Amino acid sequence: MTAFVRDQWYVAAYGSEVGRDLLARTILGEPIVFYRTEAGEVVALADRCVHRRYPLSESRLDGDRIVCGYHGFTYEPSGSCVFVPGQSRIPRTARVPSYPVVEQDSFVWVWIGDPARADTTLIPRAPWLADPAYTTVCGMEPLAARYDLLVDNLMDLSHETYLHGGYIGTPEVANTPITTEVDEDRRIIYVSRHMDDAACPPFYAKSTGIQGRITRWQDIEYHPPCLYLLHSRIAPVGVLPNADGTDPDGFHVEVVYAITPETEHSTHDFWAVARDFALGDQEVSDFLAQSNRTVVLQDVEALDILERVIQAEPQGYQELSVNIDTGGLAARRILKKMAGEPEKAATR
Amino acid sequence: MTAFVRDQWYVAAYGSEVGRDLLARTILGEPIVFYRTEAGEVVALADRCVHRRYPLSESRLDGDRIVCGYHGFTYEPSGSCVFVPGQSRIPRTARVPSYPVVEQDSFVWVWIGDPARADTTLIPRAPWLADPAYTTVCGMEPLAARYDLLVDNLMDLSHETYLHGGYIGTPEVANTPITTEVDEDRRIIYVSRHMDDAACPPFYAKSTGIQGRITRWQDIEYHPPCLYLLHSRIAPVGVLPNADGTDPDGFHVEVVYAITPETEHSTHDFWAVARDFALGDQEVSDFLAQSNRTVVLQDVEALDILERVIQAEPQGYQELSVNIDTGGLAARRILKKMAGEPEKAATR
Amino acid sequence: MTAFVRDQWYVAAYGSEVGRDLLARTILGEPIVFYRTEAGEVVALADRCVHRRYPLSESRLDGDRIVCGYHGFTYEPSGSCVFVPGQSRIPRTARVPSYPVVEQDSFVWVWIGDPARADTTLIPRAPWLADPAYTTVCGMEPLAARYDLLVDNLMDLSHETYLHGGYIGTPEVANTPITTEVDEDRRIIYVSRHMDDAACPPFYAKSTGIQGRITRWQDIEYHPPCLYLLHSRIAPVGVLPNADGTDPDGFHVEVVYAITPETEHSTHDFWAVARDFALGDQEVSDFLAQSNRTVVLQDVEALDILERVIQAEPQGYQELSVNIDTGGLAARRILKKMAGEPEKAATR
Repeated sequence: MTAFVRDQWYVAAYGSEVGRDLLARTILGEPIVFYRTEAGEVVALADRCVHRRYPLSESRLDGDRIVCGYHGFTYEPSGSCVFVPGQSRIPRTARVPSYPVVEQDSFVWVWIGDPARADTTLIPRAPWLADPAYTTVCGMEPLAARYDLLVDNLMDLSHETYLHGGYIGTPEVANTPITTEVDEDRRIIYVSRHMDDAACPPFYAKSTGIQGRITRWQDIEYHPPCLYLLHSRIAPVGVLPNADGTDPDGFHVEVVYAITPETEHSTHDFWAVARDFALGDQEVSDFLAQSNRTVVLQDVEALDILERVIQAEPQGYQELSVNIDTGGLAARRILKKMAGEPEKAATR
Repeated sequence: MTAFVRDQWYVAAYGSEVGRDLLARTILGEPIVFYRTEAGEVVALADRCVHRRYPLSESRLDGDRIVCGYHGFTYEPSGSCVFVPGQSRIPRTARVPSYPVVEQDSFVWVWIGDPARADTTLIPRAPWLADPAYTTVCGMEPLAARYDLLVDNLMDLSHETYLHGGYIGTPEVANTPITTEVDEDRRIIYVSRHMDDAACPPFYAKSTGIQGRITRWQDIEYHPPCLYLLHSRIAPVGVLPNADGTDPDGFHVEVVYAITPETEHSTHDFWAVARDFALGDQEVSDFLAQSNRTVVLQDVEALDILERVIQAEPQGYQELSVNIDTGGLAARRILKKMAGEPEKAATR
Repeated sequence: MTAFVRDQWYVAAYGSEVGRDLLARTILGEPIVFYRTEAGEVVALADRCVHRRYPLSESRLDGDRIVCGYHGFTYEPSGSCVFVPGQSRIPRTARVPSYPVVEQDSFVWVWIGDPARADTTLIPRAPWLADPAYTTVCGMEPLAARYDLLVDNLMDLSHETYLHGGYIGTPEVANTPITTEVDEDRRIIYVSRHMDDAACPPFYAKSTGIQGRITRWQDIEYHPPCLYLLHSRIAPVGVLPNADGTDPDGFHVEVVYAITPETEHSTHDFWAVARDFALGDQEVSDFLAQSNRTVVLQDVEALDILERVIQAEPQGYQELSVNIDTGGLAARRILKKMAGEPEKAATR
């Protein structure tokens, strides 16, 4: 497995998941409890009482404070302990780590690693999710597989043809070559597949109402480690954007994934689908939500199988990579670099 | 985990659990089969046939002998093999280990470790359990946690306030300081908490009939590794024992736990509640049995969580100990000494 | 555990199990996918796509080719890749290993290990299974135990008396001595137990119609590692074969086991019962199928228990072997030799 990239922002939850009930979630192997103060600020604390490591998520809130359910140790949102049973003196070391958090684009982002470096790293944007010009459906599926497998999966969409046929896959996806670009400085990987004349899969036919064949553009923009964007443009065959970049006759779907490792062998698979058409149309929303969840679950099933395969196989198994893997291999290389691992030559 | 203390007596079962059906129970990682001879003596044999290690507990009794269910090897209560299929000669080494057992205070005690040393060690007493002057309810709950966690739990009753509120916990338990004494020679740890004016929790209000506030004494007496006694005295506020030690107006409950490691990560959690009031009152017995079992299961749930936390956490995690932990830390120190481990400085 | 004997033929399936649906089965730890071509030939390929190791058994057939369900890599029955998505060039190394297979005696045999040596090793025969002079019932039960335990079990039938009483066991089996012969060159172990005057167990009484006591011969012929034959002859007491070897008044049952390791801790337990009487009698077939399956499941239950016992026990546990184990110890010795392990002195 690729080592975790620790000094980074990760999506921990949708903002709507965090409230006055305690939410336990493990990120990069670290158990964290999330809640909101009475004023609405998101708090993220290590989910371990300093005393006997009881999970604070099994506890309860007292105003903005969290009271351990085992012996009553009580913590401020900052992590400072303010009550110890049976004595008035609070030990100097009685505090649990707190994690920097930012709410942005409907997500709660949390910084794992050295908090001092949180401010030095920009959080990548997915502005459509909180933009009234788009209607969004979203969800999160737990994945019993290492995050690398999800990165691989999303960087190479040729699998849509085989794994997601009848939903988003058509023969043209597997058969159309890709172009890949890597911005080494900004650490962004771009993979594009522009299909000029393709069958329209049900996912887009039913939501856009287009009948007949389409121009279909898939423009991936991956910000390792966590944020994956797929800019999807659909239009009837031959309908292209204007020379000035405006595109009134195209249908635009922004597919967003947040890839957050839970443990070395499991991943939080956040997915969202934002569209600039059929705004507020509940029927289209329901259809896209249900379809995309089905597609995500098809991936989950396949990747869970792969995780079991990898865990059972002997060391030193060798993969074979081909052209479609260019983006995925670039992602692995950059993730390794970010994690501080030495690079290995990729097998081609 | 603290290493097992092997050369010691452990509670293996209630006497009532052992009869003419074979009882399989693992103690300190050793699988043992228990049964009674026709004369009523308890037999404890290693639960492995010498031939191909088939569990004798999967077998059947033939009089006082146990007949292996796989190939018929047959053993005396002493463990000597007296029948081998297909030949008349019994190999000299054909015997399974037998364990010293003693029935006392309603328990079956078994000696793990070197049988030659069994006679050198007194079995601690819990005489109330078999005393007609007391009425007792009891049970055993399997705990999927190392035994240390149960020792910790029982030595620090401040958790009653938080984990067992509504049953046995009130604010005074967590807020009243304790006194701790260690008898290093006899290896007994005493922890006392005397509350002069406390709320009466439902467990005692309903069983004693006291209305209003109480004097509540908790006097722990732990005989490591296995036997834990909580001498609990309840009386209306201001009602104290007489100068001569008699205490006709107090209510006395002897809470007994036997802490028997099953494996390195699981424990047999035997519990009994003996009272010197409402003798033979079935309604009170039912209430106390049901209430105490609920309390034990609250502990089991919390300790099972802690076991999983410990197994998932990185090595070297540091706890923070405070005043309430004095008894628990003393217990750890003595258990380590008994197990022959070097002591470490406790963190405070 | 005895190491796997790799350069050998193993029963992978009944021929009737393999068709145009993909069959995934792990043999000696190697995941293999089986299917038949349109012409009916059995194909056995490594169950891993070369690209990203997706199991081909999760895929689909396109004529005689198998199409990976993840990205569409397509393979010939030889294992050669003939299609890669997004490019026309097929990488030279794009092939999955194929396994030599032979159909014989109703079984599909597969060669694990170096394919170059497949032709040098004869496949042992069980001709009755496909012989119209016999009527056969058969099945396969998954065993959650290492294959050594099944070899031990079958080489020492004295366990019939205890584990299979009421089905095939009577007291005479455990009490009659065996003779054991080992053909070191051909690597076959023979264990015989001839009972001249024995009770007739229900398995044989009901199927042959014999009333009263019987002559019962058990002649084991084990071809390590995979094929175990039990030549069973039943006749009324005193009825023997003719001097010329013909045996018109005996009832002959050929009990065949194929012992195929799945993983280091699990085994495919193939069993078949072929008889030369009551040919085509469905009632007798149903009775023998149901009875033998019950017997196999009694073994499965016992051996699954033993596997758990072995996995939990400390290293260096010592068994005690007696006369009845002579055949089993010879089997271990030959299996070790075949696996290239040094022999150890057996404990007696």
